Amino acid sequence: MPTRTRSSPRPSPLVPASPPAPIGIFDSGVGGLTVFREIARALPHHPLIYLGDSARVPYGTKSADTVTGFTLQAAAHLIERGIGMLVVACNTATAAALPSLQSSLTIPVIGVVEPGARAAVEQTRGRVGVIATEGTVRSKAYTRAIHNIDPNIEVIESAAPLFVSLAEEGWANTHVAREVAEIYLEPLLDANIDTLVLGCTHYPILRDTIEHVIGDKVMIVDSAETTAASVLAAIGTSSNGAAKHTFLVTDAEERFRRIAGEFLERAIEHLELVTL
Amino acid sequence: MPTRTRSSPRPSPLVPASPPAPIGIFDSGVGGLTVFREIARALPHHPLIYLGDSARVPYGTKSADTVTGFTLQAAAHLIERGIGMLVVACNTATAAALPSLQSSLTIPVIGVVEPGARAAVEQTRGRVGVIATEGTVRSKAYTRAIHNIDPNIEVIESAAPLFVSLAEEGWANTHVAREVAEIYLEPLLDANIDTLVLGCTHYPILRDTIEHVIGDKVMIVDSAETTAASVLAAIGTSSNGAAKHTFLVTDAEERFRRIAGEFLERAIEHLELVTL
Repeated sequence: MPTRTRSSPRPSPLVPASPPAPIGIFDSGVGGLTVFREIARALPHHPLIYLGDSARVPYGTKSADTVTGFTLQAAAHLIERGIGMLVVACNTATAAALPSLQSSLTIPVIGVVEPGARAAVEQTRGRVGVIATEGTVRSKAYTRAIHNIDPNIEVIESAAPLFVSLAEEGWANTHVAREVAEIYLEPLLDANIDTLVLGCTHYPILRDTIEHVIGDKVMIVDSAETTAASVLAAIGTSSNGAAKHTFLVTDAEERFRRIAGEFLERAIEHLELVTL
Repeated sequence: MPTRTRSSPRPSPLVPASPPAPIGIFDSGVGGLTVFREIARALPHHPLIYLGDSARVPYGTKSADTVTGFTLQAAAHLIERGIGMLVVACNTATAAALPSLQSSLTIPVIGVVEPGARAAVEQTRGRVGVIATEGTVRSKAYTRAIHNIDPNIEVIESAAPLFVSLAEEGWANTHVAREVAEIYLEPLLDANIDTLVLGCTHYPILRDTIEHVIGDKVMIVDSAETTAASVLAAIGTSSNGAAKHTFLVTDAEERFRRIAGEFLERAIEHLELVTL
């Protein structure tokens, strides 16, 4: 019976010969589709399973304990479906539940806060603004993640909850959105931030409007892009073949289908209703 | 074995000699506090228990099946606390779950849709507009309730989801709210409605803004007021004594305390966190 010797190269578990295990992407609802979109762009041949907890969305106004409980349930469901990596594509869930996930799961878990914080530190000249949900701001997860890298950076966090409804309503590029953005961003601009982190997965939908308000002196960090870059770095090159994209929601499939079509600018297939 | 004869009068369960059973008021979150406020005004001496399902709010974007399941859980919790009547102070929950509640519970159940529909029929000259959540509009509960009374009335329903976030953000009387109201209400005004039903419990918070936009030719039906009138009619006169008001939430007590303070214009006592 042949034995494997140390000299025979073992295939990397992340680039197997058989179809790779899908990446699970979890979000409280539709917002994480901005992260899904960037990961699909970075790894076009990798199978992806997106799970949106639309029965209990939004997480941004809920307590850390409740958000952690919901997130652990979602992770268990994705593990049962055989994912090889979990991306928590929701800032509120990352801020509340990432340590619990990382200590309880054996697969790699990537959240959206740390990649965004790292990108902000690389870009800033010293003053970073973060806009996020009430839950994320209350957690101070971005301030902590940035100060872990460089405690001298000044971080100003501010909640911008109406941006979520504006994005979901399809009002991202309206005069109303512009006016709301001016109100939310004024204190950050007054504080002379040079970098702005979009600390909620819905906010990239409003990027054009936000850029218009902050002008070209403030740089934007889009946590969807930076998270996708982290996933690509962890996975390595994408495998070949057609990638299957599966979408799971806990409620209201038709609403998800409609909003997902707008977020991804294409119709989605393989949509299933699941119970957590 | 004694049999009950028709001639022996049964005491009404609604006007007992001992302290009256509390009225349970259920809502998906904080919006139903507008109904609570009107009921407390109409029955100042009656004990009230308010339950807001803040862990799973909002219901307006969720499916009828999910909303019905959540509502039945909430009702079961309030029944355990000994309520003598249930008021479903959430239009979406009323539209989805009222028949299930009325067939499964032995206590009286009052929803917010029927009182609002009745008041609209009494006021209108023939064209009623209804603004509500996506879930309520999709259910066509108001159209059905109005047509049950008078099928000749024209009913135009329209979703106004951003009003919820504006109310919760404390932005009810801002320029942004005015502009959003103009956008939502324009199609209804173009359709020449003479009566407008505020078909979501959050919307009375924006009443001044809405009135400013619709002018004085369109009459407003506030379902919080009309529901309180129905409750008063069912209960009869209020009992004496100090009324205990208990508030139960399924998550985020401090956020509830803050928003409730704004909605009720007073601090709340007796706030408990519960699990459904």
